[in-house]
Amino acid sequence: MDLASKGLSIVSTPAEAFAGDAVISMLADDAAVRAVFLETALLDRTSISPIHINMATISVGLANEMAERHKAGDIAYVAAPVMGRPDVAASAKLTIIAAGPADAIAHVQPLLDVLGARTWNAGETPSHANLMKLAANLLLASAVETLAEAAVLLSDYGVGPGGFIELMEASSFPGPVYGTYGRLIAERHYESAGFKARLALKDVRLALAAADARSIPLPVASTIRDSLLEADAHGDGDRDCAVLGRTAARRAGRE
Amino acid sequence: MDLASKGLSIVSTPAEAFAGDAVISMLADDAAVRAVFLETALLDRTSISPIHINMATISVGLANEMAERHKAGDIAYVAAPVMGRPDVAASAKLTIIAAGPADAIAHVQPLLDVLGARTWNAGETPSHANLMKLAANLLLASAVETLAEAAVLLSDYGVGPGGFIELMEASSFPGPVYGTYGRLIAERHYESAGFKARLALKDVRLALAAADARSIPLPVASTIRDSLLEADAHGDGDRDCAVLGRTAARRAGRE
Amino acid sequence: MDLASKGLSIVSTPAEAFAGDAVISMLADDAAVRAVFLETALLDRTSISPIHINMATISVGLANEMAERHKAGDIAYVAAPVMGRPDVAASAKLTIIAAGPADAIAHVQPLLDVLGARTWNAGETPSHANLMKLAANLLLASAVETLAEAAVLLSDYGVGPGGFIELMEASSFPGPVYGTYGRLIAERHYESAGFKARLALKDVRLALAAADARSIPLPVASTIRDSLLEADAHGDGDRDCAVLGRTAARRAGRE
Amino acid sequence: MDLASKGLSIVSTPAEAFAGDAVISMLADDAAVRAVFLETALLDRTSISPIHINMATISVGLANEMAERHKAGDIAYVAAPVMGRPDVAASAKLTIIAAGPADAIAHVQPLLDVLGARTWNAGETPSHANLMKLAANLLLASAVETLAEAAVLLSDYGVGPGGFIELMEASSFPGPVYGTYGRLIAERHYESAGFKARLALKDVRLALAAADARSIPLPVASTIRDSLLEADAHGDGDRDCAVLGRTAARRAGRE
Repeated sequence: MDLASKGLSIVSTPAEAFAGDAVISMLADDAAVRAVFLETALLDRTSISPIHINMATISVGLANEMAERHKAGDIAYVAAPVMGRPDVAASAKLTIIAAGPADAIAHVQPLLDVLGARTWNAGETPSHANLMKLAANLLLASAVETLAEAAVLLSDYGVGPGGFIELMEASSFPGPVYGTYGRLIAERHYESAGFKARLALKDVRLALAAADARSIPLPVASTIRDSLLEADAHGDGDRDCAVLGRTAARRAGRE
Repeated sequence: MDLASKGLSIVSTPAEAFAGDAVISMLADDAAVRAVFLETALLDRTSISPIHINMATISVGLANEMAERHKAGDIAYVAAPVMGRPDVAASAKLTIIAAGPADAIAHVQPLLDVLGARTWNAGETPSHANLMKLAANLLLASAVETLAEAAVLLSDYGVGPGGFIELMEASSFPGPVYGTYGRLIAERHYESAGFKARLALKDVRLALAAADARSIPLPVASTIRDSLLEADAHGDGDRDCAVLGRTAARRAGRE
Repeated sequence: MDLASKGLSIVSTPAEAFAGDAVISMLADDAAVRAVFLETALLDRTSISPIHINMATISVGLANEMAERHKAGDIAYVAAPVMGRPDVAASAKLTIIAAGPADAIAHVQPLLDVLGARTWNAGETPSHANLMKLAANLLLASAVETLAEAAVLLSDYGVGPGGFIELMEASSFPGPVYGTYGRLIAERHYESAGFKARLALKDVRLALAAADARSIPLPVASTIRDSLLEADAHGDGDRDCAVLGRTAARRAGRE
Repeated sequence: MDLASKGLSIVSTPAEAFAGDAVISMLADDAAVRAVFLETALLDRTSISPIHINMATISVGLANEMAERHKAGDIAYVAAPVMGRPDVAASAKLTIIAAGPADAIAHVQPLLDVLGARTWNAGETPSHANLMKLAANLLLASAVETLAEAAVLLSDYGVGPGGFIELMEASSFPGPVYGTYGRLIAERHYESAGFKARLALKDVRLALAAADARSIPLPVASTIRDSLLEADAHGDGDRDCAVLGRTAARRAGRE
């Protein structure tokens, strides 16, 4: 896409981006965020005071480090991870979880309103937004794994999981998660990759790491990590995390 | 409650109940169902051919035995477990999962319409309705356990789980489960007992037993069974299954 | 084998066996024990008072039922499960765990001395011997599963598990378990079936059932049950329980 | 202890230690090893070519980094983690797992012979020794957790775990692990701290990290990590890892 023709100014270094009023970044993981923002002098040399909105899903530890480094550099730091699959993003209906200085969030609200349908204010501590995002994805991954286990059980007894999913969606579990992932599992349709197994694994790992740092055991999260590792070990890391359906079926010898 | 004055005829034995057009039973567990229907001559001596609607949540194995015994006794057998907490039942908004002979279900549909807001037809095999109910409660118990794990993690980092639940309900997880149980966990309010931990344990056990009989490993279900056993071991079996929040907190030394 | 020519008297019914001084039985599982001893009048009609030595590995619940029924029939009941692989049995080096009336055990000690190298007296309550046997097999199955997990990890990094097993046997883990099962795993030699995966699964299930009856969570036992179920689901139930090595490798996509 | 009076030369910096023929280091964890050896110029400026024997239990990743940095600095690097509790160390009966250049190991063998009863040669790749150590400690931690689960089950049924441990040691599980830890658990004696829960946790974490890096699920290891986290969360991290006995009892409400 020719972004320049759309009126966007393309800059060639991260530092140039910090010359504007606000910077939005959304890098892939901790390592990328660390490489760009912490292992460079980027945050030290800004003479003006922009706002940095970091939409990446990163670890709680790194979020705290980022908050400190931005404070030292006198840059307002807003953590703003998002919730929603790509189709939700495309229609600008994402939910943004924002945390950081209240005035900074207020200042960038118009920007956030363009990117998402709603902004959830998670308070002044940036890492709180990241932790909420990790907890949300833990709920999601757990729902998917449990749907996968239910589907292999039902199928084995001759009950089509499709009808079960329809019932669940129509009763206790409406909303985008159970229906979407349940159908992908029921139809063994894992290629869509709206939310890759590898990214679910990344987030469950980060939730477990945050818990580990405080000596909090999370047995279901541990179990899900193992299932996602198994999916990845079988080459399904880049498939949709609904591929846990295949993992559950393989364990049961029903693949 | 003086049911007789409400126009109900009170019978003194199960056999008398079978003198009517249809019998609805909803006993507590496998043992009670077995004692009343299989370890007596009840199903052998009926001269007419009523319909038996069994609304209990029982094992898949027993459901199949019941179907056979009713067939031998020429009694139409409809399995009709229900989904919904007591408040849902009180307002007649339960979802009924019904399976059995199509004509029998059609015949009793008016009765079912009084008891629930909706009947989900799960086909001709009665045990399929029971298995769907067990799978539904596995989804529910897994959601509650994961909410409990998320809540202890968030709390420990200073994020109030109440706000998190509100966000989840408003985004990915609308519907009665995440909001209801999430709030009970966030508020550490376990006395309501809308769905007792002991009953959740019973159903997860039945799901695992059905899986075990076919050599299907269900690792998340196993993990949830352990958490529910822990709750029961600590005297919380008769509390709401949201008490998994206490179990998760105890494990983390944060009770 | 023509046992009669070896001096053995062959009887045609269990009742005839009870005409002797002592009866030794070693049936396959709870169902078989229940069918022969509890669902017949066998224990009611004995006129003399023999001693019944039950060497089967059965559930704690059934062991208690058996003790009561024998008491009612005035038959001394000794639970005497054994520990050891077939080669150990062939050389009469089994360890027998015996529990029951002290005088009955003393009386049959010469018999037990022929069958095993040693008798461990586990007290007066027969079911205690069964529980110790189940706990012993839980230790064994856990050691095998952990060896399997260690082997797949080591192999993946290029460390031959054979040398590792040799080191373990020579240092922290001497004795028959780690060496024997470790080598079977290292050599991917699962056909010996000295201790079938299906029987290990049976015993882990019985340990979990005893724990469940008292609301005791056993998370490692639950995890091992899942691995053994997975082995069974893949047709490895009749192979040696060292086949957990294959299960661990399959999970990791390294089979 | 006045080590200088025993004939030892005390140096004041790590660099001075590298002036001798060989350096033995045994730092607490990855962070300490990284701080002393990798985040300093220590390994760059040695003019002579000593041998560095690193006896610390560190991660596989760090072990590989260390090997590379030593190679670049032309220093022979031998990984030599040890197996054995403090009493074993005090009597110089430790088992040393050594890996590194064959000639370097041969050269320092007299030194290793003073420190341990036996050296196990794990080949030329230093990290292989570390991985074997982690796998050994995984076996150990799994044995301790399973003993803890067995003990709570037995106790609850009135079977003294002490006798069970004695039987296990006398039959299937001789050697230092089952007897030592089994007795500590049976006697609820957790203060000895021969092998702290926190250190067991560290090693299980490192084994899981090595597995995670290759997408290998290790379900029993995950389960043990959760139990050790729970012990740590309850303030038992500095107690002997036999304190898993307390954790298992707490889960069952029998503490």
